[in-house]
Order: sequence, then structure tokens, then C-alpha cells
Amino acid sequence: MEQAEISTETSSTVITCWAAIAWTANAPLSIEKVEVDPPKPGEVRIKIISSGLCGTDKHILDGKNKVPLPAILGHEGAGIVESIGEGVTSVKPGDKVLTFPIPECKECQFCLHPKGNMCLKEKVLSPTGLMLDGTSRFTCRGRKIYNLFGTSTFTEYTVVHEIAVGKIDAAAPMDKVCIMSCAVPTGFGAVFNTARVTPGSTCVVFGLGGVGLAVVMGCKASGASRIIGVDINEKKFPPARALGVTDCLNPRNLKKPVQEVVKEMTGGGVDFAFEVIGNTDTVVAALESCHMSYGVCVMVGESPSNSRLSFDPILLLPERSLKGSIMGEYKTRSCIPKLVTDYIQKKFNTDPLITHQLPFQKINEAFELLHGGYCIRCVLLF
Amino acid sequence: MEQAEISTETSSTVITCWAAIAWTANAPLSIEKVEVDPPKPGEVRIKIISSGLCGTDKHILDGKNKVPLPAILGHEGAGIVESIGEGVTSVKPGDKVLTFPIPECKECQFCLHPKGNMCLKEKVLSPTGLMLDGTSRFTCRGRKIYNLFGTSTFTEYTVVHEIAVGKIDAAAPMDKVCIMSCAVPTGFGAVFNTARVTPGSTCVVFGLGGVGLAVVMGCKASGASRIIGVDINEKKFPPARALGVTDCLNPRNLKKPVQEVVKEMTGGGVDFAFEVIGNTDTVVAALESCHMSYGVCVMVGESPSNSRLSFDPILLLPERSLKGSIMGEYKTRSCIPKLVTDYIQKKFNTDPLITHQLPFQKINEAFELLHGGYCIRCVLLF
Repeated sequence: MEQAEISTETSSTVITCWAAIAWTANAPLSIEKVEVDPPKPGEVRIKIISSGLCGTDKHILDGKNKVPLPAILGHEGAGIVESIGEGVTSVKPGDKVLTFPIPECKECQFCLHPKGNMCLKEKVLSPTGLMLDGTSRFTCRGRKIYNLFGTSTFTEYTVVHEIAVGKIDAAAPMDKVCIMSCAVPTGFGAVFNTARVTPGSTCVVFGLGGVGLAVVMGCKASGASRIIGVDINEKKFPPARALGVTDCLNPRNLKKPVQEVVKEMTGGGVDFAFEVIGNTDTVVAALESCHMSYGVCVMVGESPSNSRLSFDPILLLPERSLKGSIMGEYKTRSCIPKLVTDYIQKKFNTDPLITHQLPFQKINEAFELLHGGYCIRCVLLF
Repeated sequence: MEQAEISTETSSTVITCWAAIAWTANAPLSIEKVEVDPPKPGEVRIKIISSGLCGTDKHILDGKNKVPLPAILGHEGAGIVESIGEGVTSVKPGDKVLTFPIPECKECQFCLHPKGNMCLKEKVLSPTGLMLDGTSRFTCRGRKIYNLFGTSTFTEYTVVHEIAVGKIDAAAPMDKVCIMSCAVPTGFGAVFNTARVTPGSTCVVFGLGGVGLAVVMGCKASGASRIIGVDINEKKFPPARALGVTDCLNPRNLKKPVQEVVKEMTGGGVDFAFEVIGNTDTVVAALESCHMSYGVCVMVGESPSNSRLSFDPILLLPERSLKGSIMGEYKTRSCIPKLVTDYIQKKFNTDPLITHQLPFQKINEAFELLHGGYCIRCVLLF
């Protein structure tokens, strides 16, 4: 694959490089030459070094979650700043950075509130697939290409708003830290910030992918006495056990509904349940797995667009809680670079979540790996 | 109305007295002579002095919430112990007591857990309409009459398990404290225990009946800066304002959905929303009224049997919480008698919640009053 074409005056020049285009759902990604416009004011152009493949990317490719297409997907990226637009002050060319699917403008009432991380700008960015000025920075074969969540990391170069870019430690290993931009904080924060798992508690985790196992790591670090892992793919059980799962359940091999089995195993239900799949039936099963009188169910997976979560309210009334969690409630730019520093300082080790690394060109093969089950997180290297 | 017939050996004698029988739903209650059996081991026979009428009683009469019929309804009672069964130690004849729709056996794993109040015995009591031994203590015209939630207070005498009876201060004014057995703890606890309303926060309360206004009182006591009250009956607005509601909304007089108006009034949604009606559509409206990034919605009202709460999970995913609350999460026998003492010591005043008092015989008139809207809580006096 030939080199990307970049002039020396990078901040005002279009870069032509390779990117994986999702022209439609339910089709392989197409690796093609794209033009990446220079960053406009408040924007940052980034040379992507690594990108994780997230379940959300897969849901979009499978047509379950609707976003504007054609687009460059990917939102879990680590890279190096190539150039910056006018007014950008928090990063400079050469800085190592992560891209965040949830921005943090630090100005809106949502950002200024001590709780929550849903920056108001996210509401503009995600549904449109465009930058805040309503335009795109990507062109392919003369057509405008949308971004994903204001990030787009399945490309050699991308343009992201400064408010969705976090400068990380210069010592960060760039082939590993991309998963810190989504999977790791999503899982850790669901445990530490949303559920607030307590020592000695019982937990169940539905879905043992990258985020699910980050949840498992968080539960173990919180001192949970029992962590039940649920997945229909038993190939995920050995790595799950290695990270802290004490009991593995495959709902397809059980004679009764998995929630009944969980309740029997735990004397009436777990203290904390996590749904890390994005399936409304599994959310209800997770809710039913919780203890009736004080169980907390955290919904982490994003269900398909326009789906309905439907249950008898009596399931919730006796003091269960159902909570949503996005990016683990972390304010992205303020919190996540610190997680990277903690990782570098070996306060935790998320490397086991990365079971595969493939060159960017093999992205379709990487998505196939997600089906197989041996793969927890596959990282693309550029 | 003639006097109840009681022999002196009360603990082994059947009492014949007046009770209001719900033979079927959607019909007036029928005041008839019933036989009330003596208390069996672990049971307490109580002379009812006052009883509140709760929305749940009304939902049952309206056929929305299914319970075994024919039954003696009513679960919010204050009375005096007439006799006790074998082994009863926590109360004795002559004690002033409250009856609780949620028992507290203090032995099951639910009761022993520091959180939650759903005693395992409740699961046996409520659905069957029978005592724990599977029999009834009420007979009318030769037919077995079911109880309601193990309590049944629309009768001159009732039999309740000791685990659902709380001894209260001898100084308690019996015409007032019956609402402490359900409405007051349900509302207060939803605020203090479930939502944990914080000073300066914004709140919305859907449904300004007795429990709704107890919620309002709790929000005000917690230092909420703004309390929006929502009801379709504007007659409830003056008493609601008197208790702390700052803004009143009648959804039928608004040009857009009430949740949109609440969001506009509060810059994106309230910190805490309470649904105190028992309507799944209103639960969704309350959830939508919450701030997207940190709003907490507490479901207090009991929706009709077999109803479905249905919404797009994306409503919850960005870090909203939806919680159920029954009896305000108070462990009934351990906590509620202390609330009565606090009331007697004038730490709070719930008397404004009682807008009407009627003699027991006028119970059907009392139910009519609930329709009218002027009535917050009507207390029956025996």
C-alpha cells in the first residue's frame, strides 16, 4: 500500500490516504483512497496509529444501529496530532492523543455539572455524522463521506474536534492504548461510577467481549466475591475466568432461563448485573437476575436503533434500579488520559483484553474474528 | 350500627363485626357483618381505629390491580391490639399499633440485608390474600373472604401477622397516624432513601395525591430549589403549593408534552422525577423529564396488573436511572414507629395531607371523594 500524500504545509493541505469506507450496511468495508481536509478552527487532524474494533462498529455494519452512510467508522483510536486548526490550544502537532466518541467541551451546562458526561455537543455530533459546522472532512470518489460519532478511526488520517481529543502521556504504547478511548473506561466506569460495586458483592456480566471483560476486571478490583459470566460463546470462558469470572453460564445449555439459574445460584439474585451486549431481551434478563430488594442493573450495551425495552413495571417496583452508562460516566478529556497514565504506571493491566492485532488493511478479517469468539478485542495497526 | 359482639375471652373467640366487602371489582363496597376468627400463633387481632384510603385500594376497586376477591381491602390502618396469638411477643392487648402491607420478619435473608425492605414473607402474603398458613380469618355469609396484603383495614377488627404489626407511641393521635403506615413512609422514603434528593436540586412530581404530596414534603425538606407538580386535577394545586410545590402543570392545558415543558423549564431536565400515579405512560414521561446525563426517576405508583413499561432504551442509556420504591425502602417495623414518634415530637407535620375524615360507614362516599380532586387523603374513623 503506497504512502499517504502529505505536503509540508500540513495544516492547510488536503491529505490523500487510505480509509475503510462503509458504503452501506451488511457489506464488507471497502479500503479506498480518501481526501482528508485540513482541520478547521477548533479541529485537530490526527495520524491514526491504532484503532480498536468495538461492538458498536459491528452493530452499525450489521445494520442494527443506524448512522448516516457512507461513513468511515471506528471510534476507538490512538494517534499522533498531525496538524491543528485555529484556536486549538490543548494539543499540538506531535502529541500522542486518544479520540473520544463523547466530547467534553467544558463549557456547556452538562460539562459544568459535577455528574454525568453527556456534553451537549455530542447531541449534535452523533446523529449527523458531520462536524459541528455541518460539513464533512472526508471525500471519496467525489462523494462526501460521513464521520462516526465525530471520530472515524478506520483511516490513516482523521479530523476530530479538539473537544473530543485527549492528550496522553508521551510514554504511552500506541499499539495498546487505543482501547482506553472506549472499551476500558466504558467497562471500568460502569462498575466504579454507575453501579458502584461494593466489596463482597455478587455480580453477573452478560456479554464477555472487550467491554464485558473490562467490567469483570472492574468488579474484581472492587472486591466482588462472585462474578458470574454469561455468554453464548464458550470460547470466551477461559479468558473470562483468567480475568476474574468465577462461574460461566451459556444460556443455550441451560434447562431454564439464565436469570432463574442466576437467582438460584445467588440466593435470590445478584447485587449488580451488567448488560454489555445491546439486546433488549438480555437487558430484561439482567434486570430479573438482580436481587428484588436492592439489585442494581446497569445497561452498557447499545441496543439496536428504535428498539423497545419492555417489561412489567412490577419487575422494577420492589426497589430494583436500572441505570444506563455511557463511557462509564467519565468526563472524557478530564478523566481518560489519567487512566492511560495509571495503565503506564502498571496500576492495572488491560493488555489481556487485546487478543489480536492485525494490520489496518485486514479490517474485514478483524470483523470476522469478532464472530469467531476467540477474539476479545482486535486492534488494528496502521 | 350495632356494636361488635365480643366475648371476654377474646383470644379464642370469633368476633362478629362490620366490614366493607369487595365482592367484585367495579362495584361499591358492601358493608356487612363478618366473622373475624381469633388470631393463630404469630398473629394479632386488632381493633381498627382509623384507616386511610390509598390509590392502590382504588386501583383494585377499579379492576386495574388484580387481587383475590371477595376481599376486605384497606392496608393503611391504625388500631389497638385486641388479642394476640401464641408466641407473639412484640405487642400485647391494648397497644397502639400500625398495620403494614410489607411485613418485616427480621429472619429472612432479605430482612437481614442492610438494604431493601422486601421481606420474603411478602411474596407469600400479597398474591394469595391468605395468611401464611394458607387460610383466611374472615367469613361473610358463610363464604371465605380474602385479606389484602395480609392487612385488611376496612373492618372493625382484623387479624394481621405479628411481622406486619408495629407498636407505636402510646401518645399517638389515632385519627391521624394511620397514614404513617403507607402514604407517608412511601413518599418520604422515595425521596430520602431511593432518590436521595440533594440540596439545591430540581424535582418534578407526577401525581399530587397523598403519597405525591408526601414526596413534595420530602423534596422540600431535602432542600430542593424547585419542585414542579404535575396533575390533571387543578384542585390539587393550592394544597400542593402550600406544601412546597413551586410550579404547577396540568398536562391537559399544555400545547406540548409535559416532559418537554419540564425540560424547557429546567434547562434540560430535572435532577429527580417521581411517578406517584401508577401509569406506565406517566413513568415514561417522568423518565423523559429527567436530565439526560444524571437524572434519576423514581417509580412509586403501582401500575395496573400485567401492564408493560415500554420505551426506547436510548432514553435510559445516557446515564439516567430508573428506580422502583415500595414503602420508601423503609424496613417497616424497624423504621416506621420512629417516624410516628418524630411526628408526635413535631419534627414534621403530615396533618395537611388529611383533608377529609369520614365515618367508616361512608366508605363508598370516601372513594367518590378521591375522584373529585379536593381530597388528598380521606381517613375513615371507626
